[in-house]
Amino acid sequence: MPAALDRVRIVLIATSHPGNIGAAARAMLTMGLSRLVLVNPRRFPDPEAVAMASGATAVLDTARVATTLEEALAGCVLAVGLSARPREFAGRVLPVRAAAAEAVANAAHGDVALVFGTEMSGLSNQELASCGMVATIPANAAYASLNLGAAVQVVAYELRVAAAGDAVWRAPRFAPATTDEVEALYAHGRQTLAAMRFLDPRRPKRLLPRLRRLFARAGLEKEEVNILRGILARIDELIAHGPRR
Amino acid sequence: MPAALDRVRIVLIATSHPGNIGAAARAMLTMGLSRLVLVNPRRFPDPEAVAMASGATAVLDTARVATTLEEALAGCVLAVGLSARPREFAGRVLPVRAAAAEAVANAAHGDVALVFGTEMSGLSNQELASCGMVATIPANAAYASLNLGAAVQVVAYELRVAAAGDAVWRAPRFAPATTDEVEALYAHGRQTLAAMRFLDPRRPKRLLPRLRRLFARAGLEKEEVNILRGILARIDELIAHGPRR
Repeated sequence: MPAALDRVRIVLIATSHPGNIGAAARAMLTMGLSRLVLVNPRRFPDPEAVAMASGATAVLDTARVATTLEEALAGCVLAVGLSARPREFAGRVLPVRAAAAEAVANAAHGDVALVFGTEMSGLSNQELASCGMVATIPANAAYASLNLGAAVQVVAYELRVAAAGDAVWRAPRFAPATTDEVEALYAHGRQTLAAMRFLDPRRPKRLLPRLRRLFARAGLEKEEVNILRGILARIDELIAHGPRR
Repeated sequence: MPAALDRVRIVLIATSHPGNIGAAARAMLTMGLSRLVLVNPRRFPDPEAVAMASGATAVLDTARVATTLEEALAGCVLAVGLSARPREFAGRVLPVRAAAAEAVANAAHGDVALVFGTEMSGLSNQELASCGMVATIPANAAYASLNLGAAVQVVAYELRVAAAGDAVWRAPRFAPATTDEVEALYAHGRQTLAAMRFLDPRRPKRLLPRLRRLFARAGLEKEEVNILRGILARIDELIAHGPRR
């Protein structure tokens, strides 16, 4: 787990529904975050939080409960407040992607916090004033109401990408064909297509370049060249001996 | 709403929990997506879906129910399957950010689909084989289990950023101070700091450059210069007349 993510606190203020606390814990753990701080949660601990955490209960077990935002932010070098609504007195406002990058950069110096307000009304202006930066998730202006757990998921995702990049699993790559194997396939193909009278060698038009383009885009593997040449060879047989053989 | 987002179908296969369908609908609408296709949902329509959609019921009302994936994908120029788990026979596998960019690029030519499997096991290999591309959300390898609604939220978010950028609201910018106002402030500050004997003009060290750097970073507004000069003027009075006046 990238060290920067260990320096990130997710702070939820006065959350009404314990299910949302559980969903936030799950969202955090999927992205490698584990430090949850709850400021005056309405109900916590709570079985609904455990149900929604779905296996991420370790995050709930180690969650810290604070009575003030100041307490939750103690020791942080940066607090980023999430806000969907425009505020008059906000300082720097960044899209969540850029804010995540700044948060991760600041994590080199100490803890950083991402602060989320209540489900109903978000952060108060006073709470936002305690944050050094405002982050906002780009959204549909006509319906910008992300669920709290969903907002934590997007923020946690951007933090992970900022800290660890977005390298993902790759499908296994089988042995690629060599250029001479590929050229031999094209030569065979040209011959067979001409024998089938699908291609007129005196007026080839764009057929062969189009086929080359298609296979180049796919990137042919050795085994695939063998399959395609097998098909061509079978066509050659049909032409030479008719379909009965 | 960017036109590309109108060409995006979100396809959910055999969803077990109607609440997740509602959460997906809400996640979609927050990002300006509206075309939901459900392949053999276990329960739909369902009051739990409506409850979790929280105002995004229009997406549920216009959702299409299909009995096969082929039916759900009919007419699409690209289907992108979401998969957290590595698969041997997957074709191109991209992180969700790059996949969203390709999906939006393809939306210029026709409909594109983002396809999600069941809560328990995701897409089957056969379902994935119907998709032209695999997208995966970078996640904690030890716990990559995103909730279905949360996964739809991240994908919808990336589609929106790909289609519309991540411009967000900005705090209002008040009238900036002019360079001569700022220089007059620094001159006043230098004088007052010297009068306070906080600054020794013969050995100023790095104090003034540090203060310049701080205010330059903040970008001073006219009103802020007035406030700071007011503070300096009050200090000047205290020095001249003592604290009683």
